[in-house]
Order: sequence, then C-alpha cells, then structure tokens
Amino acid sequence: MTAVARESALIDQFDATRERTLELVRTLERDDFVVQTAPYMSPPKWHLGHVSWIYEAIMSKISPGYEFYSGDLAGYLNSYYQQFGSPMDKGRRGVVSRPTLEQIFDYFEETNRRVRGFIEGGLSPDNSRMITMGTHHECQHQELLIYDLQHLLASEYRPARRGTEPKPAGETGGTVRVKGGLYTLGYGGGGFCYDVELPEHRVYLEDYTIGAYPVTNGEYLLFMEDGGYGSYRHWLSDGWDRVKENGWNSPMYWEKEGDEWYTNGLAGRRKINPKEPVCHVSFYEADAYCRWAGKRLPTEAEWEKAALWNEEEQTKSVFPWGDGAPSEDRANLYESGLWKCTEAGSYPEGASPSGCHQMVGDAWEWTSSEFVGYPGFRSGFDEYNDKWFTGQKVLRGGSYATPSMAIRGTYRNFFRLDERWMFCGFRCAGDAPA
Amino acid sequence: MTAVARESALIDQFDATRERTLELVRTLERDDFVVQTAPYMSPPKWHLGHVSWIYEAIMSKISPGYEFYSGDLAGYLNSYYQQFGSPMDKGRRGVVSRPTLEQIFDYFEETNRRVRGFIEGGLSPDNSRMITMGTHHECQHQELLIYDLQHLLASEYRPARRGTEPKPAGETGGTVRVKGGLYTLGYGGGGFCYDVELPEHRVYLEDYTIGAYPVTNGEYLLFMEDGGYGSYRHWLSDGWDRVKENGWNSPMYWEKEGDEWYTNGLAGRRKINPKEPVCHVSFYEADAYCRWAGKRLPTEAEWEKAALWNEEEQTKSVFPWGDGAPSEDRANLYESGLWKCTEAGSYPEGASPSGCHQMVGDAWEWTSSEFVGYPGFRSGFDEYNDKWFTGQKVLRGGSYATPSMAIRGTYRNFFRLDERWMFCGFRCAGDAPA
Amino acid sequence: MTAVARESALIDQFDATRERTLELVRTLERDDFVVQTAPYMSPPKWHLGHVSWIYEAIMSKISPGYEFYSGDLAGYLNSYYQQFGSPMDKGRRGVVSRPTLEQIFDYFEETNRRVRGFIEGGLSPDNSRMITMGTHHECQHQELLIYDLQHLLASEYRPARRGTEPKPAGETGGTVRVKGGLYTLGYGGGGFCYDVELPEHRVYLEDYTIGAYPVTNGEYLLFMEDGGYGSYRHWLSDGWDRVKENGWNSPMYWEKEGDEWYTNGLAGRRKINPKEPVCHVSFYEADAYCRWAGKRLPTEAEWEKAALWNEEEQTKSVFPWGDGAPSEDRANLYESGLWKCTEAGSYPEGASPSGCHQMVGDAWEWTSSEFVGYPGFRSGFDEYNDKWFTGQKVLRGGSYATPSMAIRGTYRNFFRLDERWMFCGFRCAGDAPA
Amino acid sequence: MTAVARESALIDQFDATRERTLELVRTLERDDFVVQTAPYMSPPKWHLGHVSWIYEAIMSKISPGYEFYSGDLAGYLNSYYQQFGSPMDKGRRGVVSRPTLEQIFDYFEETNRRVRGFIEGGLSPDNSRMITMGTHHECQHQELLIYDLQHLLASEYRPARRGTEPKPAGETGGTVRVKGGLYTLGYGGGGFCYDVELPEHRVYLEDYTIGAYPVTNGEYLLFMEDGGYGSYRHWLSDGWDRVKENGWNSPMYWEKEGDEWYTNGLAGRRKINPKEPVCHVSFYEADAYCRWAGKRLPTEAEWEKAALWNEEEQTKSVFPWGDGAPSEDRANLYESGLWKCTEAGSYPEGASPSGCHQMVGDAWEWTSSEFVGYPGFRSGFDEYNDKWFTGQKVLRGGSYATPSMAIRGTYRNFFRLDERWMFCGFRCAGDAPA
Repeated sequence: MTAVARESALIDQFDATRERTLELVRTLERDDFVVQTAPYMSPPKWHLGHVSWIYEAIMSKISPGYEFYSGDLAGYLNSYYQQFGSPMDKGRRGVVSRPTLEQIFDYFEETNRRVRGFIEGGLSPDNSRMITMGTHHECQHQELLIYDLQHLLASEYRPARRGTEPKPAGETGGTVRVKGGLYTLGYGGGGFCYDVELPEHRVYLEDYTIGAYPVTNGEYLLFMEDGGYGSYRHWLSDGWDRVKENGWNSPMYWEKEGDEWYTNGLAGRRKINPKEPVCHVSFYEADAYCRWAGKRLPTEAEWEKAALWNEEEQTKSVFPWGDGAPSEDRANLYESGLWKCTEAGSYPEGASPSGCHQMVGDAWEWTSSEFVGYPGFRSGFDEYNDKWFTGQKVLRGGSYATPSMAIRGTYRNFFRLDERWMFCGFRCAGDAPA
Repeated sequence: MTAVARESALIDQFDATRERTLELVRTLERDDFVVQTAPYMSPPKWHLGHVSWIYEAIMSKISPGYEFYSGDLAGYLNSYYQQFGSPMDKGRRGVVSRPTLEQIFDYFEETNRRVRGFIEGGLSPDNSRMITMGTHHECQHQELLIYDLQHLLASEYRPARRGTEPKPAGETGGTVRVKGGLYTLGYGGGGFCYDVELPEHRVYLEDYTIGAYPVTNGEYLLFMEDGGYGSYRHWLSDGWDRVKENGWNSPMYWEKEGDEWYTNGLAGRRKINPKEPVCHVSFYEADAYCRWAGKRLPTEAEWEKAALWNEEEQTKSVFPWGDGAPSEDRANLYESGLWKCTEAGSYPEGASPSGCHQMVGDAWEWTSSEFVGYPGFRSGFDEYNDKWFTGQKVLRGGSYATPSMAIRGTYRNFFRLDERWMFCGFRCAGDAPA
Repeated sequence: MTAVARESALIDQFDATRERTLELVRTLERDDFVVQTAPYMSPPKWHLGHVSWIYEAIMSKISPGYEFYSGDLAGYLNSYYQQFGSPMDKGRRGVVSRPTLEQIFDYFEETNRRVRGFIEGGLSPDNSRMITMGTHHECQHQELLIYDLQHLLASEYRPARRGTEPKPAGETGGTVRVKGGLYTLGYGGGGFCYDVELPEHRVYLEDYTIGAYPVTNGEYLLFMEDGGYGSYRHWLSDGWDRVKENGWNSPMYWEKEGDEWYTNGLAGRRKINPKEPVCHVSFYEADAYCRWAGKRLPTEAEWEKAALWNEEEQTKSVFPWGDGAPSEDRANLYESGLWKCTEAGSYPEGASPSGCHQMVGDAWEWTSSEFVGYPGFRSGFDEYNDKWFTGQKVLRGGSYATPSMAIRGTYRNFFRLDERWMFCGFRCAGDAPA
Repeated sequence: MTAVARESALIDQFDATRERTLELVRTLERDDFVVQTAPYMSPPKWHLGHVSWIYEAIMSKISPGYEFYSGDLAGYLNSYYQQFGSPMDKGRRGVVSRPTLEQIFDYFEETNRRVRGFIEGGLSPDNSRMITMGTHHECQHQELLIYDLQHLLASEYRPARRGTEPKPAGETGGTVRVKGGLYTLGYGGGGFCYDVELPEHRVYLEDYTIGAYPVTNGEYLLFMEDGGYGSYRHWLSDGWDRVKENGWNSPMYWEKEGDEWYTNGLAGRRKINPKEPVCHVSFYEADAYCRWAGKRLPTEAEWEKAALWNEEEQTKSVFPWGDGAPSEDRANLYESGLWKCTEAGSYPEGASPSGCHQMVGDAWEWTSSEFVGYPGFRSGFDEYNDKWFTGQKVLRGGSYATPSMAIRGTYRNFFRLDERWMFCGFRCAGDAPA
C-alpha cells in the first residue's frame, strides 16, 4: 500500500470510529451524560473525552513537542497513565461538572481536526500503527459505554421494551472433542493486534472436550433451581465469600416476579429466554456452574484451538468461520427507545471447524486462564494492557456490543473475577482421556 | 387582616420566595445542576425539586385526598420524612439522571400553579401558617444551596474573582459584660417562628462577658501560629480525634501559598482579610480557640440575651438593632462571575443594646448549647426539626447567605459538631464573677 | 483531723479499694485476663495495670522527680492522657501478651508499696485529695471491670446460673410531682467529689412530674410488643439510624426463645423478671420509650432535685435517703459460679423525700442532659473528665456494680448515646403545667 | 510393607510430628498462647487445637459413626471446612478465652490417645494415607506457627538476640541457562504428596535462564536505593496500589536506623546481612524487582525443571540434590532466647544438576504461576487445597521453618499476592532465545 493510500484508509477508519461513538450517545438525555452509577462505570461524558484524549497522548509520544489542547482536561480524562500525571480517582468521575458536556464536544471535534491533520502530514508505518491503536482503544470504550449505559438506563429506569423481539436461538447443548498435542497460541496474521496477543508460541494440550454452544439461560436455571447458589460445595472459597457478601442468587440484572425470572436490559424488561446464552455472570459463577455440571472452564488455549484450528487442514483462521471479517456491527440494529442496540445472537457467519457455535458475537466467554503475558512478551505501549497482569481472568470471543472492527479470534479480553456488568457468559470444557 | 388580604400577602410572599430560588441558579452551567461533590451537599437540581415537593407534602397534610404530581418523584425528592415513604439514601442524589433538569423545572412550575390555586381556594389561619412554613423551609434551602454551590464551584474550580473587593470590616475586639438573673428565652412575637423557638421560658444566668465582635481571621491566625492545631491541650477529646483524622490545620477552604493564606469562596480566590469574621470552622475548632484564649463559647441563652435584651428598658427586640426587618438580601448584591453574591459584612442595621456587633448577617455563631427542645416543647410539624434533637449544637445569628425574610434573633440553627461547609464562625464568652 | 489520722484513714481507704479490685478477679480463668471481646471493653489484665498506673501518674504530678516503675508499661497502661505520651490504640489492648499477667500482678503489688510509702511520707491536704481521687478512679474501673466481665463471660459462655434467685422487686409504677423554681445544682458537701460536680449553681425549673420507680422490664416489654422497635415515629433520627444499623429489637443481652425472653447476665441465663428495672438500653431506646409513653426523660437537674431535695424542710441531702453512706457493696453478695455478684435491687436505704424509689443501686438512669461543664466549671485534674464534654449524656444514680464508696446523689456519670453494655436504665418525666 | 510395619511406622511418624509441635511452644509465656496480633495469624493456642481437630475430622470421614470429643470445640477449631459446620470468623480467634489453654492441652493429649488407638485398630492403605495427610497438615501448621510467633514476638517485643550469628552465606549471583522443550511437571514418586501435585503432565517450555542463587538482601537494597518503591514504572497496577495503600518502602520487618537497615526476627534484632536471601517480600515486590532488573519471575514449571531435572541423564529427582531427604530440621538448631530457631541457610545437601543453589531451606520462592489445578486434577480430600484455586500464586522450594519431613521439590505452596509475613523470597528468570 502506498503511503497516500495508507493515510486515506486510516482517515476512513478513524472517521468511521468517531462517528460510531457519537451514534451511541445520540438519543441520550442531557443529564445521562454526567452521572456515574457505580464505581466501575464512567459517565458517558467522560468516555467521550477520554477516547479523544488518548489520540493526544499518542500524538505526544510520536511528536515530542506536541502541545495538548488543555492541561486541565488531562487530569480529568487520563484513566490510569501515570506518565501523563496523576489521574483523578476513578470513583470521582461523576462529581465533575466542569468541563461541561459542551466543552467535551468541542474537544471531541478539535481532536478530530488535529488527528486528521496529523495523518495528512504523513506518518511512518510505526506511527500509523499507533493511531490505529487509538481507534481500537476507542472500540474498547464503545463497548464499555454500552455496558455503562445498560447500568445507567436499563437497571435504573427499566424502560418499557420497544422494537422487535429477539429471534429465538436455535440449537443448544452438545459437546465436541478436540485432539491435544502442541498448539501454537496467539496472533499470527498481518493486521492489527494488541501486544498481549503476541508472540505466537507453543503450548502442549491434552485431549479435551468443549461445549458446542455456550451455556444457556435454561441450563443455568437448572443450576439455580438445584440450589446452586446455596451450597458451598460448588464454589471456590473466594467465590463463596462473594456470594454471601453480595447476596448473589442469580445473574446480574435478573429479577424474579412471582415464579418468573425477568432481565432488565437495553431492550427493556423482558422474560428470560431459556435458549439465549446466559449473560452477566462472574467468573466465580461460571466456575461453580461447571463444577456442579461435572465440568470445568476451558483454558484460553483450549478455547482458541476449538475456535480457530482446522485439524483436518492443519490451518488456523482469524475467526471461527474463516478469515473474513463480520459483515456488520451488531450493536446498531434496532431502536430500543433509548438508543440503537441489538438482541443477543451470534454473528451468523457460522461454526468453527471443530463444531463450536456462537463463539463470537453474543457474550464474552470466561476461561480459567489468568491474564498474564505470553512467554516472550514484549510491551508494545508504555503502561497499557500489561499493567494488569494480575488478578484478572481472560475472556475470549466477543459480545454483541463489540464493534465488528475490533473482533478477532485471538483477542484476549480480561476482567476481575467478580465483575459481571459486562456482557459475559461461558461454555464448559472437560478432560478427555484417550 | 381579612382572609382575602391574608391570601394575597401569602401569594406575594410565596412568589417572591420562588423567584429568589430561581435567581440563585440562573447563571449555572447545565452540568452544575446534576453533580454531588460531597455526601453532605445536594445537587442544585435536587434542591429545586425538594423545595417544591415540600409544598405537596403540606397540601397532602391539609387536604387528605390530595394527589401528588408524581409518585416516582417523591422517592427522589423526599429528604428524610419516613411518613412519605422510604427516602433515597442522601449520598446517592448525584447518581440520578432521571428526572431530568427539564422535568424538575416543569415540576417547579406546576407546583407554583397548584400552590397558588390552593391559596386562592381559601385557607384557614392554621393552614395558611403551614404554607408559610413551606416558604421558610424554602429559605433554609436557599441558604443550603449557596453553601453547596460554594462547595461545588468555588472549591472545585476556583474562579478568578470578579466584582468589587469586600469593604474592610471596621473595629474588632473588645468585650461587653452582661448581667445575669432570670431571662426569658425564645420567641415571643406574633409573626412566624419555628416550633423549636417555643415556648418562651425562664432560664437563670450568672453574670457573663461576651465578645463585642465575632472572632476575626486575624485573631484566629494567632491561634494557628501559636500551634493551636498541634497541641491536644486546647481540644476536647472528640475534637482532637477529628483534627488528626481529617488533617485539619486551618478553616475549611483556606490554602497556604508561600507565607500567605488564601480562601476560595464565592468571590473567587482571595487573600485572607484579617478584619473579617473567621468562617468555616467546626464547633471543635471554635471551642479549642476559646480554650486557648482563656475563654469559652456562650450558651445560646447568653448569646440571645446579649443580642436582644435591653437591660435599661427591660425589653426584648426581634433583632439586635430593634424590631425592623433587614432592608435587603445580602446574597444578591453583586455579580461574582458565577452568580450574584455578597461580600461578608453584617446587616448594617447596627449593634445590640448590650454593645454586640455583627451578630446577624456575616456568619452563624456556634454556641455551647446542645440542640434540644425547650422545656414544654410541642412539635409543630410531624418529623421536622425535633427529629434532630441529638448530636448537634445550636448556632445563632445568621449568615450573609440567609434570606432576610428568614432572619430572627431567636432563630435556632443547628449542625453537627464537625461540620464546617456552612458559613459559621463564633464569638467568645467568659464567666464574670461579681 | 490530724495529719496522722488523715494518713491512716487514707491508707485504709486505699487498701480496701485495692483489695476489692483483686476480689473481683479472684475466680477468673487464666485466659480470661487476656482477651478483649469488644472495642469498648478492656481485658481484665489491663484494668489491673491501669488502676495501678494512675497512682504513678498522680505521684509524678505531686513529686516532679518521680521515677516510673517502667517506661514500657506506661504506653500500654495509659488510657488517654496525652501528657504521659502517646497511648496505645484502645482497640488493641487485646493483642498484648507482654507484659504478662504475672508482671502485671508484680506491678500491682509494687504500686501498693510505693503509694503506702508515699502517704506515710506525709501529704498536704491537696495531695491527699489527689491520692483519694486515685481510689475513686479505681472504683470507676471496678464498675467497668464488672461490665466487661459480663461481656466476656456472660455473653460469650452463658454459664448455668448458680446461687439464689433475685428477690422479686416490690411495687412499680406511679408518678410524683415536683415543684419548680430556682434549684441549686451540684455538690455542696465537704467530702470528695469530682470537679464536674462543681460549682453549685442555680437553675430555673418549671414544675414537673417524674416516675416514682424506674421503668421495668414488664413496662418495656409493652413497648416492644407494641412494635416500638419497628416504628420510626418514636425515635430521634440518629436513634432510628442506630436501630437499623445494629438490628436492635430488644435491650442488650436479651434473647428470645420461643415466646419467652431471657437475659444473659452475671447470674447466668434466666427469664426476664418483669418487676426488675429495665437495663442495658441506650439513650436512644430510653428516649423512644418515653416518647411512646407520652413522656420525656428528665433533665439531670430534675433528676437531682427529685432525688435529694426536701421541699418541706428546704434541705438537700447527699443520698435520696439522707446523708448516710450505703451500708454495703452490692456487687459482692453471692457466688454466681463465675465470681461474686448480686441480683438487681436498689440500696434498701429508702425513697427520696419527693417519693422516688430505687434511684441508687440498680441501674444508672439516662437523663436528657448533655455532659458539659457546669457554669463556672474549673478543671480539677489535667485531661480528665472535661476532655469528654461533647457527644455524651449524663446518667445519674448508680448501679449494683457501683462500689458504695463511690456513690453520691450528685455524681455525674456519662456515656455515648448508643452505648448499652453498662448497667443503665431510666425513669420517665413529664411537664406539669400548673 | 506389612500392615503391622505400616502401622508402626505411621505411629512413629505421628508421635514425632506431635512432639515437634509441642517443642515449638515449649518456651512461650502463658499469655503468648492467647493473643492474635494480625487478622492473618492465629493464636498458638488455636494452632494446637486445630492440628488436633483435623485428626478427628479425618477419623470421622473414615469411620462414619465417630463421636467428636466436643461439639463446642469444633466451632472454634474448624478453620474453613463448611462440611463440619460454620467455622468461626478467623479474625476473632484472639477473643476466645474459653476453651482455656489447659483444656486445649487436654484435648491435644486425648487426640493422641485416640489416633494411636485408631491406627492400632488396623487401617487400609487408603485410610493410612488419610492419617498421614493429617501429619503433613500438622507440618504446615508448624511452619505457620513459626511465622505467627515471629509476628507476635519478634515484631512486638524485639528480643535481644542470643545464640550464634548466622554463618555468612557464600557465593551469590550468576545465571544458568535451561533448555526448553516438553517437560513432565508434578510428583511422580511413590511416597506421600498432595493432590495438587498431581497428575504428572507435559508442558512445553521455551529455553530460559534462571538465577543460580536467590536474590539477596544486598541486591534488593540496590533496587531500594535506586528508588524502586517510588516509581510506578516497575510495578503492576495492583502492586502499585498496594505500595501506596500500605506505605511499603522495604521488606516486612525491616527498619532503618540512621543509615543502616535492621530486621526483627526470631533471632532478635540484627543488621541486614547483604549475602542472605531477601525475605518477607510480597509477590508484587518480587515482580517489581525483576522488572527493574530487566528480568521476570520464573513459572513454576521453569522453577521445577531447574531444580529437579538432570538434562544429561534425562532423570528427575525428588530434591535438587537427589532423592535423599534432608538430614535435619532447620528450625530447631539453636536457642534464640525465645525458642529454638535457625539462621537462614539452605539445606547443605547441594545444588541442582542445572547449577541452582539454595532452592530449598532458606525461603519459599515466588513464581509467576497462578495456583490452579494441573490438567486432569482430581480432588483428593473434600474442601482442602483446591478451594483456593483463585487469587494466589505458587511458591516453590521451602523455608528454614519447613519441617524436613514436609519438603519435596514438587511441593506447591500458595499465598495471596500481597502477603509477606511468611518466609518468602524469589529468584529471577529470563527468556533465552536461541
């Protein structure tokens, strides 16, 4: 690709990303932008500013003399990068009335102008990759923004549902068997990926089984009805402590009314659909379910091999269905009354060669693997993903809130073990002695 | 007064009160209305709704079948009245994005219409007094709103000061001697007062001395420079614990820059004026200063007698300067760049017969008296002031943020002993053995 | 009294006090001395050391060159006197294994030798009064020790009861009327009293009524059965918060078994006796009961006048029954299996002139008065009672755990409003308009 | 081995284990047994009871009708086994005065009688292995007891040091290179091991380097002097939070006096010896040091291969120096004045085939591996080690407080990432690309 073509493609990608961010907040009320409803979520106003500020941080790394738009903004919009000064305590993002939303929108637009100018001024491939990373960072926050809007709007205000019903999911259940041996884990393609997906490296796997589908609401209800939340036997000690501390007795956002379970989501309040993948469960709950079911969670290597490896052809693809990117963004399909969102439902592109369905596009799937660097890991950006190499588990796949541009089979998402406000489910695995 | 005249006067008072509330928020930014910067303050949006809701609560007491504008609003706008359902946790007022500000303004207007209609429908003197109490309640919140705006704007954003300098205060220092004996404490006039100002009753006082002026910044600085915050000897045990817990080393809003102390207030950041009354000190600090100075705080009876009693004529007035109400509201005098406010400076109406100055109109003054009911107290409104008859001290006088309509020499304000975000100072007293 | 007689009397009093302390712990198990079962109680070992250390503190004030037995001990045994160095955090007294109990007993004996030598060396009346205060301080801790043993033993281990049943109380109920006017509050005798009982001073009282007996278990049960703990209407706001926080639904140490209420006390577990004064209620509960009953708590002046004033003869006595000290210590009467203690039951010396019974010797009685200095108060000992002049209420009377030597009608005990592990009850009062 | 020989050997091992427990507390003061100086430690009295109770728990699993010595004791002595009822909150073990120490010693002896009788009654190999596990459990608590005594005695009371100086360590520094490929991880011998050391399974390793010696105090001081605790760059995000929260600026038990660092340990207070392995550092500190040094922590597979694998002979031994057990217990060598303990210093049996020294017998070594089950893990005892498969890191090796009987090269110890009161250090590793 020529430099000019590369710049043009980058500007297109940048513009599309920025536009999608604005699209997500287009129907919000003015007050919705300001408040923070939980320490782990951020006000929409903050997301708008932060995704802009990151481009400034990147430009300042590339171009040492770079002058920031506003020093005051940085303290507010910096999430955790100590190199850019002392960030504000995350829990206080909702007590900030200045900068106002209008000032944040001005900043958003000004950043657009600057980034475009920066690209048009000519960029080395390395610097081009840095700006690309800024757009992928923005994709991450688009997804977080959707989680946060669900927390803010769906759980607090429970809008009456509008729009069409989600189409019932198809088949569920079943297990596939995967052969072990040496497998090469990590990203090996030529496109963009994060540093934590590298380097490719060999791991040895025993033979194993893995669910052909994610665990569904219906299956999870059996666990609940069998007293799953009431018996310590299914739980890790830390998990059992959380159950009691937090009074967990169902996935997050679920409520019982009479004999019926409901969930409050972006599409409003609706009855639990037993065929949909279970969502909004913590690692501890996923783990307890597996133990109850006589199974275990897969490691991330087991998950990835089941998703991407074609045993017959001895090849590895980028997605379960092949190398072609998803054809559309799932989070913009219909009008819920609050903003555009989609029903749950995997990318329709199909099952993996080993026969696993719905691996990408419904809910992220917990694995048993701790989020640490791969052997030989080299940090690609100062103070980014590798600051979090303790206390978190890897999730694989992608949810219906993940922008299609940000999806890859080797993507390693990570959250703390008790978090469940993101769109997260799981599938079971098991040992398969010969 | 005829019923018609009474109604007309009440509507005038109501309209003036409502207008003053709106005036206080007229120059705020949109985002300012929504956030909560400390657990003890409330978002301006909430104040607007709450002062309206109280009229509905009153109308529902008067008129049993009264239908509230909105059941949902009540949960949010109820401060602590259990009889109207379970109020929202105060600390969560800043995580509410719906009702939106527009809805609150609609509610404000609708309440205006309803209250006016209610008054015009004819009211007994008792019910008229209930509505009057609603306007006085709104006055209380106008003052709280100013405290909260200071917390939100002045301490967070430190606006550059605009407008004229406060005029330097005049004389300070000096002590007057007051003769003891039986004194009749409490409100004895014919106008409006709160139930906690009643009944008038006799108390026996020894002879005492009391400061002719409130303690000034300059005097308080001497205490600070003498190591007042560093020596346990001046402090009550609870106070000393607070000093260490909170790291107090000056009044709230003060900051040292080089050798100079500054304060961040409604008029922006400015140098401490040594002639102004010290403000934003807790009860513990006032008490410690007095002990350091070889004095003590006055009781509320001592304060009131020094303010209102004319020994020569054996008469008691409503204000230190006589019975005439203050001629203007102090909190609306000049434009600070954020909104209208005034410099410190007492109501110019003059000193008390015993020779005490600046008793009303600068800062509330801490007394040593616990806030409890007077002997023979009868509650005038269910679940109002008398719910708070423990753990609080009485403050007397009135600050420059107090609406003139709400000022009286017998007014008993009350706060917890460690609070200091309100406009509060003190004057010293002493024993005066014959 | 000659100096020699005064010394001899002081040594007798000292020896008797020390002996009583040892008597209280004679039947404890070795491990009982070491543990701390609540932040507000102290290990018995600590009490033994602390009451000894105070004599050293006193001797060091009297005799400037005094050398302490051990510098290390002081840090552990100092309760809150900043002048003697930084005291250990009270909540950590139970994590101390050295000094061992044997070392504490050695210290106890060594202190005895030193104090006796000090007295025999000759003392001025002032210094004699200081040592006397040490013995009264020890009396205070004897009572606290009994509270703490109740917490440690009775609540944790619920010993089977031994010894005789408490004799049923006699009459209960009824109200007496007391005439108001000027009353002289405080201690006016020639014996020992604390600084906070001084100076005598005039207060003006309206006519009032006061209960002829303390509120009984039986009366309090009516409040409980009427839903007293479940309705906010009876409670001050701070009190209602405590009810919910702490899940209070009965006095401390009560437990329901089937339909029957039991209490766990020094005499083991036994059924609630409806005729005994209610005990182990906080100020908030006492206040709520009164409001429920259409009454209020008495002020401390009202309590004292009802206890000590003879209207007919216009005289004031030291005790309700006259000037003669109680004839015995109540807390040493029988063997409970754990240690000697008594059943509830007032000093039998009789009712007050106004007709009030059981004012001294059953349970301390809450008053509505804040614990502050009397007008003209002068501190008699550096950093003693007057450090606590905020956040506490006065209790009057005396419990069956109070040493007889330490009882006086003018004694002002004080505790925080939510404390209830001490032996505390109350009686009601009311207004009595002519 | 015949059944009789097996029983006799088991009784010998049991008796020796019990005797060693008593030996560890022989010189304690009476009060030392009772107190709890941190939430993570337990009173010695509790350890004595708990290690006895576990044998009862085991006997009850083997022999269903087994009657426990005392139901009351179980609630106190159960650590975390939900199947035996609700265990007491760990943080409250220090507020228990009954059972007394004497009762615990009686229980200890009675348990001895019962276990011996149980063994003599005849045991299947499986049940014999269960009792053996009880002795290994007791070994774990012997080590914990030493940690706890260090916390209680050395840090609180700082005894003057007695006994001989530790011999200075020999060489330090240097790195060895280990060849990668498939390695078989886990215990493959015929003796006792825990379920978490099984099953043996293959892992793929890249080539790597590993320190020939643990990191020493002298090396760690270089990190400290280079501002290691002051720069976020070396730390994981969670670790940096802990540094700031806890104010860490050195290993635990270190104190600076003038220019010199001291440590308070079982041998009293002494100067830091720069040649000894650094001890009492958390995972976060170990990780930060490695990053500062351009290294990383080894995985547990890397550690084990470097310790046990002989590349030349293609064999794996039980210990670094071969298959022979250590010749003595390290924790009983000399009299410190408090009880017997040893200086730091590895088991003298020698280096591993790959050239690594001091891998067993000084301090446990942090690895980067999360404590989770090996592939194919099967739980060997209900609610034991596998309850803790989250939030902990594996430590390998063994400290000088580890009983020799409990040492194995495949032993997987585990602690939370911020714990440092145990005897824990680390060695560095690195990638070694061909």
